[in-house]
Amino acid sequence: MPEYKAPIREIQFVMNEVLESEKHYANLPGCEDATPDMISAIIEEGAKFSERVLSPLNQIGDQEGCQFNDGEVTTPTGFKEAYQQYVEGGWPSLAHDPAHGGQGLPESIGTVISEMVGTANWSWGMYPGLSHGAMNTLQEHGTDEQKEIYLTKLVSGEWTGTMCLTEPHCGTDLGLLRTKAEPQADGSYKVSGTKIFISAGEHDMADNIIHIVLARLPDAPAGTKGISLFIVPKFMPENGAVGSRNGVACGSLEHKMGIHGNSTCVMNFDGATGYLIGPANKGLNCMFTFMNTARLGTALQGLAHAEWGFQNSLPYAKDRLQMRSLTGKKNPEGAADPIIVHPAVRNMLLTQKAFAEGGRGLIYFCAQLVDKTKLADTKEKAEADALLAFLTPIAKAFLTEVGFESANHGVQVYGGHGFIAEWGMEQNVRDARISMLYEGTTQIQALDLLGRKVLMTQGDSLKGFTKMIHIFCKENADNDAMKPFIEPLVALNKEWGELTMVIGAKAMQDREEVGAAAVDYLMYSGYVTLAYFWARMAHKAQEVLDQGTDEENFYKAKLTTARFYFARLLPRTRSHAEIMKSGAESLMEMDEEHFIF
Amino acid sequence: MPEYKAPIREIQFVMNEVLESEKHYANLPGCEDATPDMISAIIEEGAKFSERVLSPLNQIGDQEGCQFNDGEVTTPTGFKEAYQQYVEGGWPSLAHDPAHGGQGLPESIGTVISEMVGTANWSWGMYPGLSHGAMNTLQEHGTDEQKEIYLTKLVSGEWTGTMCLTEPHCGTDLGLLRTKAEPQADGSYKVSGTKIFISAGEHDMADNIIHIVLARLPDAPAGTKGISLFIVPKFMPENGAVGSRNGVACGSLEHKMGIHGNSTCVMNFDGATGYLIGPANKGLNCMFTFMNTARLGTALQGLAHAEWGFQNSLPYAKDRLQMRSLTGKKNPEGAADPIIVHPAVRNMLLTQKAFAEGGRGLIYFCAQLVDKTKLADTKEKAEADALLAFLTPIAKAFLTEVGFESANHGVQVYGGHGFIAEWGMEQNVRDARISMLYEGTTQIQALDLLGRKVLMTQGDSLKGFTKMIHIFCKENADNDAMKPFIEPLVALNKEWGELTMVIGAKAMQDREEVGAAAVDYLMYSGYVTLAYFWARMAHKAQEVLDQGTDEENFYKAKLTTARFYFARLLPRTRSHAEIMKSGAESLMEMDEEHFIF
Repeated sequence: MPEYKAPIREIQFVMNEVLESEKHYANLPGCEDATPDMISAIIEEGAKFSERVLSPLNQIGDQEGCQFNDGEVTTPTGFKEAYQQYVEGGWPSLAHDPAHGGQGLPESIGTVISEMVGTANWSWGMYPGLSHGAMNTLQEHGTDEQKEIYLTKLVSGEWTGTMCLTEPHCGTDLGLLRTKAEPQADGSYKVSGTKIFISAGEHDMADNIIHIVLARLPDAPAGTKGISLFIVPKFMPENGAVGSRNGVACGSLEHKMGIHGNSTCVMNFDGATGYLIGPANKGLNCMFTFMNTARLGTALQGLAHAEWGFQNSLPYAKDRLQMRSLTGKKNPEGAADPIIVHPAVRNMLLTQKAFAEGGRGLIYFCAQLVDKTKLADTKEKAEADALLAFLTPIAKAFLTEVGFESANHGVQVYGGHGFIAEWGMEQNVRDARISMLYEGTTQIQALDLLGRKVLMTQGDSLKGFTKMIHIFCKENADNDAMKPFIEPLVALNKEWGELTMVIGAKAMQDREEVGAAAVDYLMYSGYVTLAYFWARMAHKAQEVLDQGTDEENFYKAKLTTARFYFARLLPRTRSHAEIMKSGAESLMEMDEEHFIF
Repeated sequence: MPEYKAPIREIQFVMNEVLESEKHYANLPGCEDATPDMISAIIEEGAKFSERVLSPLNQIGDQEGCQFNDGEVTTPTGFKEAYQQYVEGGWPSLAHDPAHGGQGLPESIGTVISEMVGTANWSWGMYPGLSHGAMNTLQEHGTDEQKEIYLTKLVSGEWTGTMCLTEPHCGTDLGLLRTKAEPQADGSYKVSGTKIFISAGEHDMADNIIHIVLARLPDAPAGTKGISLFIVPKFMPENGAVGSRNGVACGSLEHKMGIHGNSTCVMNFDGATGYLIGPANKGLNCMFTFMNTARLGTALQGLAHAEWGFQNSLPYAKDRLQMRSLTGKKNPEGAADPIIVHPAVRNMLLTQKAFAEGGRGLIYFCAQLVDKTKLADTKEKAEADALLAFLTPIAKAFLTEVGFESANHGVQVYGGHGFIAEWGMEQNVRDARISMLYEGTTQIQALDLLGRKVLMTQGDSLKGFTKMIHIFCKENADNDAMKPFIEPLVALNKEWGELTMVIGAKAMQDREEVGAAAVDYLMYSGYVTLAYFWARMAHKAQEVLDQGTDEENFYKAKLTTARFYFARLLPRTRSHAEIMKSGAESLMEMDEEHFIF
C-alpha cells in the first residue's frame, strides 16, 4: 500500500534556510502574523491532514472514480468527509483576505499546504484548488457586492468554485469560444453554451458551486478581444443560503487516463443567470491572474508526482532482493542484494529526488515572488512581476515534464510490479500525464517563454534572471567548495544568453524559428534554472556543514544530490542546445500531404 | 474512433528496397517458396485481417478487459472469434516446420505479420505471440514425441502456449526461483509452485494451453544452474484430443495499467504433471532461444506504438483548428489554422514517424539475421548470431523507450483530448508502458549490451556492427547527396568506439562503472544504430530519385524524414555521451540510509 509522508525537513530547508522565509515575511507589509512558530504549526497540521486523511483516499479515488447519475456526481468514498474536515480546519481561508473571512496569510504558505495536499492526493486537491482560482479571480475583479455574496462563501469553504474556459472546439485558442451571454433588464445575463473539461464542475462536497465562465456579449468583437467573464452559480444565492437552481448542469463526466477521483465535467449552460465580473470584453485579461496562479499550481503537480514517486520507490528498492551487486555481495545473508545497490536503480531514485527537491526550490521561490507581487512596494513588485512572468512557464512545463519522467521511474524501479495497479506506481504516471496538457501544454508554455517573455522583451526578462545567477556565481567565485557548481553554472548562464541571441537573430528572418526552438529552449532553461537552485541549496548545505551541525548527514546528502544533478541531469542541456540550433527547416520542409502514403 | 491502416508501402520499402529481401531469400536454403508474389499476397492478407478484424477490437479489449470467474477467464468481446479466424487463415503455422504442419516460411515474414497484428491490437497479438515462443522452444529442445503431441497442435493453432518464468519474488533474477518438479516413476514430473505475470495463462480461445515452465529438480544446484524446463499442459493430451484436467489453474488476473485485453495470470501449479524438455538443469540455456525471440518481439511493440501513435495523431493534427501559424494564416477561410502548421506539432509527428520507420529498418534487419541463424551456412550463421546478439538489447530497449515517447507525443498532439479515453491515445501510452518492463527491463538490456555483449567480447561484437557502418560510409564517401548523413555517421561511429574504450578502461578499475554507464550507452547506441538505418533508407531513396520514379513524393519524404532524424533526434547522443562519461561516483556515493530524512 503506497504511502505519503510530508517531507517537513525538506520543506523547512528550502523555505527557512535557502529562501530565508523569516526575512522574507518580515520585509513584507501584512505578513506580520507569519511568524516562524505559526508557520511551523500550520505546516505540521497540514502534514497530518495530508498524511492521515487524504493519502489513504488516493488509491480509492482512482479505483472508484466519480459516478454520474442524472446530472448528479458522487465523489469517491471518503472524499466528501475529507472536504468537511478541510473546511472545519479552516484551510480554504488560509491565504485569503480577512475582509471576507480569510486568515490573510501569504500565498507562499498556501503553496506549502497545496504541495502536501496535492502530493497526498492530487485528484482530491483539485477541488479546493479550483476554488482557490475562483477566489483569486473574485478577489481581483469582483465588485464589493460580488465579494460579499460569493467570495465569503468560497473562503469559508461552504461553496466551491470552478473555472469554465474550454469548449469542445477550443482549448488553447480561446479566441474561438462561442458561449454567449445575453444582457437582461435587471443587469444580469443569460449564459448559454457548452464547456468541457471543467474540473470539479459538479460534485457532492458542497452546497453550491460558483462557476467563473468565459463568454461573449452579443456585440462583442471576434477573437480574444470579445471575451467577458461571468459568475454563474449552480444555485442562486439567497440571503447567504442557496435558493433556486440555475440553468447550468453537468451533462456527463469524461472517462480519463487518470485523476479519476476528480470530476471532469461537460457543463451545459442553458440560459443560466450570470453576472459580469470585470470590464466587458476584457475577460481574457482578467483571466491572466487566474492562469498564472493555475500554472504555478500545475508546476506543483510536477513536484508532487516526483516526490510521491521517490517516496514510494525508495522502500521497494531497499526491500526487493534481485541479483548481486557487480562489485560483490552486499547482503551476503540474503538470497540476493536489494536492488538499491545497482547503479541504474540509484540513478532513477536520485533523478526523482533531484527533481523533487530542486523543483521545490524553484516553486517556493516563485511563491515568494507571488507574495511580493501582492504586497511589496512598487519597485520590488515590478521586479517580482517580471521575474515571475519569466519563471512561470519554465516552472509549469519543465517541472511537469520531469515530474512525469520521475513518475515513470517509479514504475521502472518496481519492474513488472510497477505495471500492476495495487502498488500505485502506475496511477502516479496516469495522474501525472495531465499536467503537461492542462493550463497550457508544454508547447504553449514554450512559446510563451521564448516568444512572449524573452524575445518580445528583447531578452530583458531573461537578463533579470541570469543577472541573479551571475551575482550568485560572483559571490562564490572564491569559494573552493562551490567550484564544481559555480563553474558549470557560469558557463551555462553565458550560453543561455548566447543561444537566445542566435535564435532571436534567426527569428528576425523567419518566425517559424521561434516555434521550432521553443520546446528545447524551455527544457534547456529548466535544467539551468534548477542548476541555480541546486547550487543555492549546495551553498547553504556547505555553509551549515562548515559551521558545524548535528544534522551532518542531512546536509551532506544535499551536497551529494547536487553533485548528482550537475553530473547526470544537467548534461541534458547539451542535446537541447544542439537541437535548438538546428533550426526550423527540418520541421517545416515536409509537405502536409507527404507525412503518410 | 482510432484506426489502423497497415503501412504496406513502408513495409515494402524496407523489406524489398532497403533490405533486398528477394536476394536475401534467394540465398537462403529452404526459402525457395518465399517469392516476391507470395510474400506480397501474405502481407496483404495479414493487413486485411489486422485492419478489419483486430483493429476494431483494440479499444473494446481495453474497456472490457478480461474477466475472471472461478478459475475461468473470459476474453473481451470478439477476441475468441478473431482467434478462430486467425486459425482458419492458417496464420499460426506461417513460420513453422512443415514436419509439424507449418508452412515453413522464414521468420522474417512472420515478423511483418506480427508487426501488423501487434500494431492493430497488441493485447490480442500477445495470445498467438506467446504460442509462438512456446513453439520455438519445443521445436528447438523437444523430443520427436513431444513435438508430435504438442507442437503440431500449437502450429495448427488448436492449442495455445505460454512461457512460465516469473515468480512473486523473482523476475530478473531467475536463479531465485522455487517452483519444484518431483520425478515420478513413469518418467513424468509433479510440478508445484506459483508463477506470476503469465500472459495468456488462461483464456477461452483454445481447447488447451501448453505451459512451458521453469522449475527445479529436487537435487538441483542452487541458482541459475539448477533450473530445468518442463511442458505442463492444462489438459492432458489424449490421442490428439484433450483428456483430463491437469493440476494447474489460474488463481487470479492482475489489474494492470494497460494491455487489458490480454489475460495476465497468476498460475498455481499444484502437483501438475509435467515433462522435462531439454537437458536437466540446463533450462535457462534452453530459454535463451525463447528470450531472444521474445526480446525482438517486444522491440516490435516499440515500433507498434510509435506507428499507431503517428497514424492516429496525423489526421487530428490536420483537422484540429487552433491558433494561427506564426508566419500568417495558412487556412484563411477557417476560424484558425490546423495545428499541423505549428513547428512543435510537426516535431512530435516527425518524431513518431522517424522512430517508427527507422525502427522498422532495424527490426526487419534483425529478422533477416534470425533467418540466417536458422538457415545460413556455418560462417554466415556465426556472423549473424553475433550481430543479432549485439543488436537485440538495443532493439528491445531503445525501441520500446522511443515507442513510449512516441505514444506520449500522440497524447500531446491531442492536447486535453489526449487524456480522454475515447480517442484512444491514452490507451496507446498505457499499453506501451509494459514494453520497457517485460522480457528484461531497459536497465537489464543495457547491462546485457555493455557488460555481456560489448565488454566481455573485448568490443568485438560492437566492431562487427561499426564495421558495417564504416563500409557503408566508405562506399558513399564521394556521394555528395549523402554527405549530410555520412559525415555525422562517420563521426559518431568513431566516437562510439572511443566511448566504449573509455568506459571499458574505467570498468577495469571499478565494475560499478559498467552499471553507471549502461543505460546511456544503450540509448546512445540506439540513436547511432537508427542513424545508420536512416542513412541506408536515405541512400535508397536518393538512388531511386536519381533513376527517376513516379513515386517522387514518397522517396522525397524519406529524405526529409532522414534529415529530420539527423537534425533533431540524433543530437540526443550529445547528452548521453556526456552523462556516460560522468562516471559512477555521483551514483554510488549516497549512503543507502541518507536518501531520505
